[in-house]
This record gives sequence, C-alpha cells and structure tokens, in this order.
Amino acid sequence: MNRKNKPPFDASKLFALMENLETDLLLASSRHNIRYLTGGYYYPLYMWDAHARRTQYLSFLAIVRNSLGDTFYVGRPGEREVMQEAEVWPELCFESERIGSLSTAARIVEVLKQRNLGTGRIAVEMPSLPADVFELLKTQLPRAEFVDAVPMMDKLRAVKTPEEIEIIRKGTKKNLEALKTVLTSGRDGSTTAEIAQAVSREFRLRELHFLYALVCAGPEFFRAPSEKRSWRRDRALHIDAGGLAAGYVVELCRMGYLGKPSAIADDLLQGCRDLEKVVLGVLQPGIEGGNLQRSADAFLEKHPIGEHGKFIAHGIGLVHHEDPVINSGSTDLMEEGMVLSIEMEFRYPQVGHIKLEDMVVITKTGNEVLSPEGREWFISIP
Amino acid sequence: MNRKNKPPFDASKLFALMENLETDLLLASSRHNIRYLTGGYYYPLYMWDAHARRTQYLSFLAIVRNSLGDTFYVGRPGEREVMQEAEVWPELCFESERIGSLSTAARIVEVLKQRNLGTGRIAVEMPSLPADVFELLKTQLPRAEFVDAVPMMDKLRAVKTPEEIEIIRKGTKKNLEALKTVLTSGRDGSTTAEIAQAVSREFRLRELHFLYALVCAGPEFFRAPSEKRSWRRDRALHIDAGGLAAGYVVELCRMGYLGKPSAIADDLLQGCRDLEKVVLGVLQPGIEGGNLQRSADAFLEKHPIGEHGKFIAHGIGLVHHEDPVINSGSTDLMEEGMVLSIEMEFRYPQVGHIKLEDMVVITKTGNEVLSPEGREWFISIP
Repeated sequence: MNRKNKPPFDASKLFALMENLETDLLLASSRHNIRYLTGGYYYPLYMWDAHARRTQYLSFLAIVRNSLGDTFYVGRPGEREVMQEAEVWPELCFESERIGSLSTAARIVEVLKQRNLGTGRIAVEMPSLPADVFELLKTQLPRAEFVDAVPMMDKLRAVKTPEEIEIIRKGTKKNLEALKTVLTSGRDGSTTAEIAQAVSREFRLRELHFLYALVCAGPEFFRAPSEKRSWRRDRALHIDAGGLAAGYVVELCRMGYLGKPSAIADDLLQGCRDLEKVVLGVLQPGIEGGNLQRSADAFLEKHPIGEHGKFIAHGIGLVHHEDPVINSGSTDLMEEGMVLSIEMEFRYPQVGHIKLEDMVVITKTGNEVLSPEGREWFISIP
Repeated sequence: MNRKNKPPFDASKLFALMENLETDLLLASSRHNIRYLTGGYYYPLYMWDAHARRTQYLSFLAIVRNSLGDTFYVGRPGEREVMQEAEVWPELCFESERIGSLSTAARIVEVLKQRNLGTGRIAVEMPSLPADVFELLKTQLPRAEFVDAVPMMDKLRAVKTPEEIEIIRKGTKKNLEALKTVLTSGRDGSTTAEIAQAVSREFRLRELHFLYALVCAGPEFFRAPSEKRSWRRDRALHIDAGGLAAGYVVELCRMGYLGKPSAIADDLLQGCRDLEKVVLGVLQPGIEGGNLQRSADAFLEKHPIGEHGKFIAHGIGLVHHEDPVINSGSTDLMEEGMVLSIEMEFRYPQVGHIKLEDMVVITKTGNEVLSPEGREWFISIP
C-alpha cells in the first residue's frame, strides 16, 4: 500500500497523456485503474461484482491535469475511514449518501460542480462504467463532453516499475511450480476438468489467485475444461493457466506427456522453442511491435511445418491483454520495463495443440524470461 | 451444469414478470444472471473484469416472452463450442466477430434485427451493462426503448430451489468451520489483517472462494482488516466473513474472546441471541419483511441496552444483498425457499462490536437456520 501524499504513478506521463487527449479531468472507476493510481487500494468489500442490491459497488478517483493536490476519491459510506487507516494516496475522500453506484455518481456530480470541474472534456472508463451511471453523468453535467480514458490508462501502465516486475516475477514462479506439479503427476484417463481443478488447488496452496486453466488433451484442439475429454497414455497435453499475484495477471503454458513422446511431438515442441529463440533474439528496447511479429512469421514461413504454427504476444499486467500491441502492423515501441506474454504454438493433427507461453520483461539491452525453466516435456509415467 | 433443452428457472414466473414490466425481450448480461438462467454456465476465461484489451468480456442471453424456444446466447469467438460441450441450455449460440464487448453488442444488434426483435421495450441490466455498449445499442436500435431488468431478475431469483439451498447449506457449513478454526486459535497481538488472512486460508483449504473478512477487535468499531489494530488479551473480536460456494454468497459473523469474557460482554452476546430468537419466532411464509424488522425493533426498544443494538436482514444468493427486502416499511412477502442473512448486533463502548450473523432458509411452516452452532464465544487462551 502506498503511503500518503505520494502518488505511486508517473504523474508527468499521465498529464502529458491527458494533454494529448485534450482533457483536464480523469475520472477513473475500474478496479484495476483505481488500484494502479492509488498504489494498491481495494475497498475490502469490492471483491466481486454481485455485491449490492439492484446496483453495484462503484468508486471514482478524480485527477485534475497538472494539479495533483486536487485529486480526490469518492467511495461508499464508511470508506473514508478505511482509506485513512490504509494511508492511501490521496487524502481527500468523499462518501456517497447510500450504498450503490447511482449514489456514488450523484456525489461526484455534486463535488465536481462545487469545484467548477463539471464542464469541458472529461475522461471516463467507458468499457467499465455502468450504463445507468453514464446516463446520470450526462444528464447532470450537460456541459461536459465525455471521452474514453482507457487507451490513455493502458499507455500509462505499459512500462512497469521494478516493484511491479518483482510481483510478476514471484507470481510467475508460483504458476510454473504449480504446472510442473500437475503435469508430472498425470494419470491415464484424467479428464481435463480434473486437471484444471488440480491446477486451481496448486495455485491455492501457493496463495496465487486462480483465474483459469485451459487444458488441451491431444490429439484434440478443444481447450475448455471438460468432463468428457481425457488425457490418455502416449498423448500430449497442454495447460495454459492464469493467476493473479497481488492483482497482476501471470500466465504460462507448459506441456506434459503421458509416456514417451513421439518423434513428431518432439519436433513440434522443438519448433516452439526455436520460434521463441528467434523472438527473444529480436526483443529489445526501441524495436516496434511489428518487428517482433514479422520475425516470428518469417521463421514460421521457412519452417517445414510452419503452416501449423502461430505466434501471439501481448502486454500483460493488471489487465490480461494490455499495451504494448504486438501484431504485424504494430508501431508500438518496445521500452525497458514492459512485460509481455509470448505464445508459441503448433496445432497439428494426430498430435494436438503443442504450446509454450512465457512471461518476458524487456531490459535495458534485451529481455529476461521470467519463466526460463520447463520448456521440455514434463513426463508422467502412466 | 444444466442439460440441454431444460431451462433451469421458473419460466412462467419470468414471463409474468416480463408482462408486468411490459417487455417482450430480456437481454441478460451480468455474470450472475447468465449463470442463473443457463443453470451454471461460466465461460472459462470470464473470471474477472480486467480480461481483454481496452474492453471487457461480455455475453448476452436473450429470452423472448412466452417463446422459450427462441432463446439465444451471444458469446465471444470460440464460445459456441464450449457451450455445446457443457450441454448448456439453450442450444442456440452466436459468436461475436472479435473479442470484446462492443463486438458482442454489434452481433446481438444484427441477430435482433434479423429476428425482428429490435423494437419495443427491451429489458437490459442497467447497473452492469457497460456504458459504451449501451450507447451502441441505443444508436443501432433507435426504435427500441430500454428498461432496467434488474428488479425483475431479483424477484425471479428470490425463491431458491432445493438444489440452490443445498449449495448454500454446504457453503455455510464450510464458512462456520473456518471461523471456528480461526477464532479458537487467537493470539495476543494478532493484527486484524493477519486474522483476515487466516480466514482466507481456511476458506481456501475448504475450497470456499474467499470474498471478504471484516474483523473487529474490541473495544474499537473499525472493521476493515488493518496492520494497526490488534486483538488483545481480555478482548472480544468479531469476524464477519463472506465466501462464494458455486457462485452463491454465504456470510456469517461469529465472536471470539481472548481469555474469560467480561459480564457485560456476556450480556451483549446474550442480547444478540435473544434478539435472534425473537426474529426466528416470527419468520415464516406469509409475513411481510416489515413484520420481521418491527419485531426486532420492538425487542430492542424494551431491552436495557437496546439503544446500542441493531437488526439488519436481507435476501442473499448469487448477489450479496438481494430480494426479499427487510426494513420497517417492507411489504415483501416471505415465501418458502427464500434465504435470508440475519444480523444481530450491539456496538458498545469499552467492549466493542458484538455481532452474530446467520443464514436462514424459510420453510413451509417456519424457518431453518443453516448455521445453528457456535453462537457462544469461541474462546482462545492467551
């Protein structure tokens, strides 16, 4: 948790982004962006969406461009005391009259009017702002124009601090340990639902919040946990699993084999490793997202079974898929401190979906894989 | 998970509610209502909100009044196969072109137009529908009028099935076991944050999804987990904790004491039990929510320290606070199968916040407490 009067984010970067968007006021309201801007605050009862009767929990953090001292928070009744106890930045907290998002919205309208902030361009988080709240804001602030804050917030979060990287590093390690445990204890006939359940259990044991485990038992390509699909002797299986470490998403994919891998399965996994090597050889500050994708695509074009292969990468952090964007046309520049998820895969008939996924941080001169182990098969003896 | 072609909810009740709201079309989109209407379906990657780049996951379940066969679902790319595998009701599933809520919204507009369902009154979940999606719906369906579906959906869910009650019963038992374990292993000087962490661990061990633990160390009234507030020798402590059992909220409050309870602390806890006895004596099908609250309030008025006491109750299920409403003016009729959370408490200076909270199901002739044990002190020897 961040201590009082110390904004935990890069305020000058935020103000430049706000200037670019021609807005003087940011009203952040998503869980992840409020967590980011306050340095770690969550209201203790705001842990799921089905929280309140006929409404939901909502809070706002309001930031005025070039005037950090004017930052204020609007939460629910009783929340001011909780924020003070946690010594959250900022100090100024208003409370809604009643529990519920419309009451929070009414309160922020009141405060904005008092402070002459209710006109002009206001940046709000359109994809997560509740529709009824947006209707109220438009009606009550008729002289305001609303723009989406999300692209700006994604850019603000793209470069991680050493503290964020440390959280992601530790979470990645736990994820990898969990996958190793599950993949080396395979049994003939386990359903993919049972395997996903086992991943969830191993995450819990390591205090990593479980989000999902996609489990693909070859030779099929179906990845959702299922009561019908089983892992069989002499078959490959992948687990593509994500968890939350202190709010940050960590995801990995690793391969298991029940018995001795076939020659073609070996070739496919070697293909994933070779593809990753090419990508890691290119990934460094200053290159464009497009460079990375095109290097991977060029490798696959020349590879004997490249038509079955695919490379996907994306920024990752408090949001599962965030900046920077990696695709063949992306001009997003890679910067030191960005964290990527990189996914190398082949979908091959008769074998299945062979895939490796790693978490990588971009360093001053290149990159560092946060999950360098376990890119061979994890073998279970059936 | 519900099997194909069997709507798991009371369709005639829903249609009557829709008629009352003068709507022919329901577009459910919240996690809990889609789960309810499909009988248990969650898309495996829809486990948190910070899911997709610059957007979020969104799906719709569309139900046409008096025409169950026309029900359809709109999900993200690849989701149709997942629903088929899970044999979810209904069978008809459309997929958005891309991942993200605006693409899902564009797809449902297309399908509604094709089916001549894009005009008239359409019920949507205003408190959870994303603002950008609502803007798109209004623009693309200019002849539609939108009304809030939430009060109707809350009414639909208010009476629980025996299967739902069984889930809540098992979850309540796990919650109680966890609280007992933590409250009987108290140590002088444990912070309330450590105690909340211990509850979270005990929930995990029982595979109960942790939501929150409010921990109040007397003589103070502050309940959010804190690094500063400690449980001390000869002091009372309450834990008010909620978890999710297969999507259903189960919450309880129990009391612990570090040492031998004082006479006044004993009196306060006895007051909670006496208040509960009065309430349970009244609670049965056919009474109004107002009866329950007024009985509790009348008891407190006559109680020697009643001015420090309070009674709160609310329906509980997939949503934390849902129908029926209990307050002094409520005319909501109690029905067999409704589940309530009932909270009895005294906030008393020099002692602290003494509170019991139980989960109660309304039976044919009265009620059954799902958590009948542990209403005495859980004592730890310091």
